[in-house]
Amino acid sequence: MSELRRDPLDQRWIIVAPERARRPRGALGALGAALDPVDPCPFCPGHEALTPPEILAMREPGSHANGPGWRVRVFANQFPSLTVEGPHGQRAEGPYDAMRGVGAHEVVVESPDHDRDLPDLEVGALRDVLLCYRDRMADLYRDTRLKYVMLFKNCGAAAGATLDHAHSQIIATPVNPIRISRKLDAFREHFKRKERCLFCDLIQHERHDGSRVVRDDGGFLTFAPYASRFPFELMIAPREHRWSFAELTRHEADSLARALKDALLRVRLGLGDPPYNFVLHAEPNLHALPRRSGFWDTLRDDFHWQFIIYPRLTAVAGFEWGTGFYVNPTPPEEAARHLRAVDVSDAAVAHWRAARAAGAKQGGA
Amino acid sequence: MSELRRDPLDQRWIIVAPERARRPRGALGALGAALDPVDPCPFCPGHEALTPPEILAMREPGSHANGPGWRVRVFANQFPSLTVEGPHGQRAEGPYDAMRGVGAHEVVVESPDHDRDLPDLEVGALRDVLLCYRDRMADLYRDTRLKYVMLFKNCGAAAGATLDHAHSQIIATPVNPIRISRKLDAFREHFKRKERCLFCDLIQHERHDGSRVVRDDGGFLTFAPYASRFPFELMIAPREHRWSFAELTRHEADSLARALKDALLRVRLGLGDPPYNFVLHAEPNLHALPRRSGFWDTLRDDFHWQFIIYPRLTAVAGFEWGTGFYVNPTPPEEAARHLRAVDVSDAAVAHWRAARAAGAKQGGA
Repeated sequence: MSELRRDPLDQRWIIVAPERARRPRGALGALGAALDPVDPCPFCPGHEALTPPEILAMREPGSHANGPGWRVRVFANQFPSLTVEGPHGQRAEGPYDAMRGVGAHEVVVESPDHDRDLPDLEVGALRDVLLCYRDRMADLYRDTRLKYVMLFKNCGAAAGATLDHAHSQIIATPVNPIRISRKLDAFREHFKRKERCLFCDLIQHERHDGSRVVRDDGGFLTFAPYASRFPFELMIAPREHRWSFAELTRHEADSLARALKDALLRVRLGLGDPPYNFVLHAEPNLHALPRRSGFWDTLRDDFHWQFIIYPRLTAVAGFEWGTGFYVNPTPPEEAARHLRAVDVSDAAVAHWRAARAAGAKQGGA
Repeated sequence: MSELRRDPLDQRWIIVAPERARRPRGALGALGAALDPVDPCPFCPGHEALTPPEILAMREPGSHANGPGWRVRVFANQFPSLTVEGPHGQRAEGPYDAMRGVGAHEVVVESPDHDRDLPDLEVGALRDVLLCYRDRMADLYRDTRLKYVMLFKNCGAAAGATLDHAHSQIIATPVNPIRISRKLDAFREHFKRKERCLFCDLIQHERHDGSRVVRDDGGFLTFAPYASRFPFELMIAPREHRWSFAELTRHEADSLARALKDALLRVRLGLGDPPYNFVLHAEPNLHALPRRSGFWDTLRDDFHWQFIIYPRLTAVAGFEWGTGFYVNPTPPEEAARHLRAVDVSDAAVAHWRAARAAGAKQGGA
């Protein structure tokens, strides 16, 4: 079982998870290396027995659990960072704080097709993936030991992926991650002073200013954040105030699927198909918040969820590790201008696919 | 000129530095790619005209500035993240905060020999590098616009290096980086409650416990931090209370050189010569602290500097970017046990060098 440990200097929790070293690529070796295919791919239809049993799936009528016929499939990570067993067991360890690795770690396989990544899916299929995210979050938030659910995707070896079949991951943590706590504080502080949602204010400013906007359509705004840590970082957020991703409607999921597909295609076609990560900064588990924290009263008013996409174009180095200060060589205004201009019409995407297929043939891969 | 921007959600400053995109490897391309030699190497003796003029150098008697004959050489980074020009110019930009990119960005070339990295240097030469770090920090701290000096090293392309000739870098920032502010708060809070230095307490615990100690000699302790973010992370710190790296004595520099060389050799021989970063968490600029902050009174008592070494063995992925929460597959106790057992005798190092030379010859490199 893994363990959470708190750093008394950085005041951050980390997870010591020896299980993770037993993955197909192990603890080492993912860095910079290309992904050789793991054979057979445990995420492909017909290989369901190679994964833990499914927790949730979107299936064709008549198909059976843990067999083929699914469009999206969710199961526990075989090499989990955290597991749902027993109480937190918070304790002191000399001058340090420790806690058992209680939580959840799940895998969402986004498509039965081994060669399709998220932006290759039809909008309807992408919407179903988003609805799976929502449903898993809502279900995990029934467990009051879980304070936060983080949904994220690693695509490409340099972005931390160890398998190339398109998938995202969900980690539910028994403490609020430091970046989320800081964000919640900022939201709350702003609301206390102005009685407005901080993010609604930013959205209004960005739409008015326009220089960092990439797409403004169907209820969602895609923009390059003013203080982007990484070149070509993108944020996608509801234009209207929405505090809860767990309450996403089917109609909203449809619009979000269009926005996400558009953003990922712009990154792929405009930046040479780089590895990328995305993360969802959703609400914490309201039921797990201590009543006295005051968040209960205001979270619905002061919080606003966001998707963040990080194309992996630059290496993070000593300065960033040491300081938490990031150096970004691409002004977000320039990034937005570049990504706005990318042609993501069906014809352009078809052309890109044909060129890639020809390249793969020539390369003998 | 670069610009500092503050993220209102993350409450962190980032640096937008378009200059950095003009480096030999540009903004893109460093990620995962091997380092092809840049020819001619601007850091080699005889090529001093290819760099900005030197700020500081340790030189042979009779040699001249900006010519060969140096052992360590410091100059401004040609593609700086920050530059020493004019006032901060703090201002609001809509709902955001911005500031001109005032600061300094310097390069420390650690050896005239293109093929030697820090652990290949004699202890005396490594001590001179450390004394250069100290002298540059002390000099930069005369400028009260500079709040913090971060010393760091990127070694290997996957660790963010763009040139392979051994060098470290110094960035002086006009605001305290978020990780440092958080650390200073932790130190101060502990001192307020206990009237003891937090780090002195940790050192005492680690020496007593022993399970995470790699080396305990000559006034410095090398250990794997209890809540290491990365596998095989190491910390080197003075065993006695030392608040100021800028006041490092020659004798201390000598001991630290031995400890640093030992740690880097253990990482190289014990982990297969991985890319790595190191950072120095030294004191902030006392002269730049506002009197009313209260730090003036206590920094000498509550702060304790540390070196941190990060071998780059795993990719950082979406979960870490999204949360600031790190998953470490190697328990620090196991890392310490492994690194303690590495043979770093002269004979073992000579054997490793011979094996590498034979491998390079066979590889035709």
